[in-house]
Formats: sequence, structure tokens, C-alpha cells
Amino acid sequence: MIVRDLNQMKNSERHIFSDGWDSVRLLLKSDGMGFSFHITTIHAGAELAMHYKNHLESVYCMEGTGTIEDCATGEVHQIRPGVVYALDKHDKHILRADRDAPMVMACVFNPPVTGNEVHQDDGSYALEAESA
Amino acid sequence: MIVRDLNQMKNSERHIFSDGWDSVRLLLKSDGMGFSFHITTIHAGAELAMHYKNHLESVYCMEGTGTIEDCATGEVHQIRPGVVYALDKHDKHILRADRDAPMVMACVFNPPVTGNEVHQDDGSYALEAESA
Repeated sequence: MIVRDLNQMKNSERHIFSDGWDSVRLLLKSDGMGFSFHITTIHAGAELAMHYKNHLESVYCMEGTGTIEDCATGEVHQIRPGVVYALDKHDKHILRADRDAPMVMACVFNPPVTGNEVHQDDGSYALEAESA
Repeated sequence: MIVRDLNQMKNSERHIFSDGWDSVRLLLKSDGMGFSFHITTIHAGAELAMHYKNHLESVYCMEGTGTIEDCATGEVHQIRPGVVYALDKHDKHILRADRDAPMVMACVFNPPVTGNEVHQDDGSYALEAESA
């Protein structure tokens, strides 16, 4: 059994900071669950274009409000606490957090993130780190 | 892209009620993510003995407090918002919610739950429904 506390993992090596977001990876590939589980904060006012070509991801909003734009259809969905979106078709999307507060999200990745990936120019995570 | 709202799914066919807990299955096997994602409420004061022999599960606490007892070791871990536990060894466990408030948890199952499982006498979910 693995037990971890988000508050103890903030600012650890499992806490990743990037432009407009930061993420605590509570469960990674090495934990052997077959998925990874992250608590990710989208900073207030951030606009993030993403395209996870190699992963399926679900995102559950716990705090904050914003939108997700489906780039294939142009459709914009409201995000508020209780809303989940699932990128079941590796959907290219733009995530926007409202300006008044960050969005705090519980994210699941399949296949699991190793922790060594970098966001590439096309908004995806590479898979190559998984062979390491 | 799948987008769903917890608040709209309460009391739908994806909202399961049981003894001491209820759960909204936001993502099931049929959604094709390779995992399922549930928002589960452990009722105040509930004590639940569980043993998922056929699934790995991670549970992230969003609200409430309680404990998880690892039956293999007798160790008791405190649960509060921000704590995740992962049953990476199909760990037999007893989950207890404190008496003052329910615990609200974000749960991930691998393999994904189909929605047709029932809790068996040994505290596991059967896998048989997955062949349907």
C-alpha cells in the first residue's frame, strides 16, 4: 500500500513547475498502478494548448473555473468543480483558467507518466522516456 | 472528448448507493480510457472492509477525515484532504470515516469498472461482468 500526502510533496522532486501550470505527481509509472495520478494547478488566467498524442487523460476539476476548447469541433465546454473531461480521442484542446483564481485538477494518465517527459512543441508528451 | 458534470449525474444510473457509501461513476470501462474514475462518498462514521483482488485502486481524499488500516501489517494511516492511498498490492484494508463528516474521494480503478460489478462477500469486485 502506498500512502502519500500532497502537502508533503509540494516543492519535492515530484512537483513540476511550468509556464501557466504546476503539478504534483502523486503516482507515477514506477508506482506500478498502470496509470499516473497528478494534482495539477492551472494558474489564474492561463491559456494552454495541449495535444497528448501518446496518452489518454482524464481531468476532474476540484477548484476554480474556466473552459476547455475542443480544437476539432471548436466547441467550448465550461469547467467548474465537479466537471470531468476525458481526452478519449487524444483530443487537441485549449484549456483556459478564468482570471480570478487558479483551477485545481485531479488528472489521470494512461499510459502512466514516468516523470521524465517534457512537453514538446506540439503540446504532447513524448513517450521515449518510457523506454528508459 | 467526453465532458460530464458530477452534479448532473447524481441520482442517475451511474450513481450507486450501498451500505456506508455511494459513488458516482464519471468514467467507466465503456468510455475507453483504460481506467475508471469515480467520485465516492464514504458516509460519516462508516467502517468498510474491502479487498479488491481483481483491481488496483487509488483513492485521493478531497473532503473529510478518517483512517485506512492495512490488514496485512495492522498499520493505520490518517486520511485528510490531500492524502492519496494506492492499493498496489491488492491490499486488504479497512476504511473508516470520522463521525463528524463524510469523506469525499476521487477513485481510479485499473482495470476499469464496468458498472455491473457487485461487492462480493470477501469485499472484492468480481471480474466476470467484464466479459459481458
